Amino acid sequence: MKKHFLYTVFILFTGIHGFTQDNDSIIIRKLSVEIMTGTHAYENLRYLCKKIGPRLSGSENTQKAVEATARMLREAGADTVYLQPCFVPHWVRGEKETGYIVLQSGEKYSLNLCALGNSVATGKDGVRSEVIEINSYDELERLGEKGIAGKLVFYNSPMNPSYIETFKAYGESGVFRRNGPSRAAKYGAAGVIIRSLASNIDEFPHTGSTTYNDSFPKIPAIAISTKDAEWLSLQLRKQQPVFVFFKTNCQMLPDVPSFNVIGEIKGTQFPQEIITVGGHLDSWDLGEGAQDDGAGCMQSIEIIRALKATGLKPKRTIRAVMFMNEENGGRGAKAYLAAAKLLKEQHIFALESDAGGFTPRGFSLDMKEQQRNKITEWKYLFDDYSVYDFRLGGSGSDIGPLKEIGTALCGLRPDSQRYFDLHHAATDIFEAVSIRELNLGTVNMAALIWLVSEYGL
Amino acid sequence: MKKHFLYTVFILFTGIHGFTQDNDSIIIRKLSVEIMTGTHAYENLRYLCKKIGPRLSGSENTQKAVEATARMLREAGADTVYLQPCFVPHWVRGEKETGYIVLQSGEKYSLNLCALGNSVATGKDGVRSEVIEINSYDELERLGEKGIAGKLVFYNSPMNPSYIETFKAYGESGVFRRNGPSRAAKYGAAGVIIRSLASNIDEFPHTGSTTYNDSFPKIPAIAISTKDAEWLSLQLRKQQPVFVFFKTNCQMLPDVPSFNVIGEIKGTQFPQEIITVGGHLDSWDLGEGAQDDGAGCMQSIEIIRALKATGLKPKRTIRAVMFMNEENGGRGAKAYLAAAKLLKEQHIFALESDAGGFTPRGFSLDMKEQQRNKITEWKYLFDDYSVYDFRLGGSGSDIGPLKEIGTALCGLRPDSQRYFDLHHAATDIFEAVSIRELNLGTVNMAALIWLVSEYGL
Repeated sequence: MKKHFLYTVFILFTGIHGFTQDNDSIIIRKLSVEIMTGTHAYENLRYLCKKIGPRLSGSENTQKAVEATARMLREAGADTVYLQPCFVPHWVRGEKETGYIVLQSGEKYSLNLCALGNSVATGKDGVRSEVIEINSYDELERLGEKGIAGKLVFYNSPMNPSYIETFKAYGESGVFRRNGPSRAAKYGAAGVIIRSLASNIDEFPHTGSTTYNDSFPKIPAIAISTKDAEWLSLQLRKQQPVFVFFKTNCQMLPDVPSFNVIGEIKGTQFPQEIITVGGHLDSWDLGEGAQDDGAGCMQSIEIIRALKATGLKPKRTIRAVMFMNEENGGRGAKAYLAAAKLLKEQHIFALESDAGGFTPRGFSLDMKEQQRNKITEWKYLFDDYSVYDFRLGGSGSDIGPLKEIGTALCGLRPDSQRYFDLHHAATDIFEAVSIRELNLGTVNMAALIWLVSEYGL
Repeated sequence: MKKHFLYTVFILFTGIHGFTQDNDSIIIRKLSVEIMTGTHAYENLRYLCKKIGPRLSGSENTQKAVEATARMLREAGADTVYLQPCFVPHWVRGEKETGYIVLQSGEKYSLNLCALGNSVATGKDGVRSEVIEINSYDELERLGEKGIAGKLVFYNSPMNPSYIETFKAYGESGVFRRNGPSRAAKYGAAGVIIRSLASNIDEFPHTGSTTYNDSFPKIPAIAISTKDAEWLSLQLRKQQPVFVFFKTNCQMLPDVPSFNVIGEIKGTQFPQEIITVGGHLDSWDLGEGAQDDGAGCMQSIEIIRALKATGLKPKRTIRAVMFMNEENGGRGAKAYLAAAKLLKEQHIFALESDAGGFTPRGFSLDMKEQQRNKITEWKYLFDDYSVYDFRLGGSGSDIGPLKEIGTALCGLRPDSQRYFDLHHAATDIFEAVSIRELNLGTVNMAALIWLVSEYGL
């Protein structure tokens, strides 16, 4: 309070920010109070997680989620709510996977595992082979066909705990999930096991999509829990050979129709200038897709609700978008760009929340320097809301394609410490979301959206 | 990475921070890597929470915790480990409390409740009376004896959700827990029910100490869960009178001997100058005292360990202190001050972590302006570790008494959004602590302690 008071005095006496900005801080305060006290986002998220559940692209649940979020947008007071069609991959996990380690003594230890998204299945007999641990692609290439053929390649790359920003560790260790199967298939591997991309040690496997290179055979690929990865690695240091058996039952079915869900408030002065705020509605199938990315969707809807509830009328058009199929195809993102181009829409700004609904710290800005400077001038308006970090950086994969048409892009940066404990795992459930953290993220997103709608970029 | 690179270039070319500071950032990086990758704090916390459990002052568990943390300090490599005696209040909860709401129809609804710390019991027959809801002391006084005598006063003050800083809401609504029973007893109330001091709505009651004013009768006092408070309030709006029955079995036994646990590294150049870093070892009895304040204790021990493991030799003496009896008496804090005065110790700086082991955001500084300015000059050294907020503010109740001898005081400020979901409740368990958040707090504490030990204040 004291701080706020001093700050107010500062404005009154120096006048450097003038009347306009003071009015901005009043409006942001109004949005904040509305969101922190009157939120629907948390109960909407509960519905999405508990009444619907996981939302893998192409599943019946995604269709339910499309209907539910269209309803939520109407209830929030959006002027227009509509569905934007796209075709999405339809990968299904099938019957739960099984697997175990076989030691030389013949003893078996069962594994906590899951197939990687988009991967092929082992067939009904599963795959059983000697395991070889690999910690870098250099090592893989050094071993070559002679060392790899017929074996199960175990990529055991822990997320580097010394990195303060967990996304950096995810980026580094994530290469093995993303293209490790094809890199190993090149040398004749029978299958791939990756250490889950998780920043903690527990028994939950984390899925996520892999991409096959068509030049090589498609081989089955699984993730095992970090605890199992540690244990398997220990066994490999103690004795060789160690065998693993696993059986996966997933398959890629033909593409099916699905939708992005869009709700908008028409701008009063520049309705042709579009501001997008969104998250992705699909999720992996192991948890409830609460932090990834039910949170981002519910925050986006809440911004529409808060603007309507406070009677604020944005000058530019604000669109909340629930993107479909971020996890294993990005088809919703592509459909959104295609429509924007076809309709010659003017997309001035897009903000994505897809790094969890954790306590917010900042925004990463992917736009022209001049635009970044303009946003950075507003930084002081965020001081009271725990956001301070405005930096050059990526935005989000759903809005990323809009770069092609020159849209200024932005990503919410919540605290990243807890995210990879639950990302793509069974632990990503409603209970992992804090109502206050979720709302505080929304407050900051709403403030930025409001400022861009008021002043343009 | 890019940012770090640019920053390094900036230093090299401008030279404004010079060599000394660059060396500081190298040392802080070293401490950070040691703590983020080699931590013992999380496993120590697991032991404290799971092998020992709740640690109410005077209980057998606190004695076990004293022994365990002395061992941890020795294992961390402290040069000296010793116990500092104090006498602590010995309040016991007794058999689990029971209670229910009775509607006019005669229907009963059982309550999730707990006695407030230090409160008196109802006696074996319990207390049963009409409930009157009070939302401010103005209202209480307006009603006076006529409106209050013989009734159960129900203070239903929700923590204000519109405050971004939850401690502010806790401060405001907390007055009813702290002195509400005596304020109601003044007008002849039969007992007091408070709405739990919690920022979420759930079924867990939150305890915490109350202080009786000796001028008035001591009446029994309980907290009910926020969910029950909402429901009771709803019934009171629908119908009057509503009755509540409750029975508590707590009692205050005679004081018992206990200890602060202290481990120190002797300073190489100014050993007589003491820097204290600490948390409190006692906890409430409903949970495991994980965030409040096992976290702060384990962080303090970890700083000793990290300094030793990296071979860094502080110029000034660094003391990790596990204070006893913060929750319902502050006797450890008083004993620490008394010893400091008796021994004429020179306490230059004290840092407390007692706001949870959540992701850190800053430090609050309670010291002379000149000292604050010195610390604020180091701010840039924290940029890479998610800490940015250095502000005037309180420190912690265990180190607070050191103000009398002129010590510069400081409190770690972690993110506060989740803290009051679990504070003083059964939900404050080991699982609520994130290993990365805990460590990141330690990194920043270690950095600040190091800088003060290197440059003094």
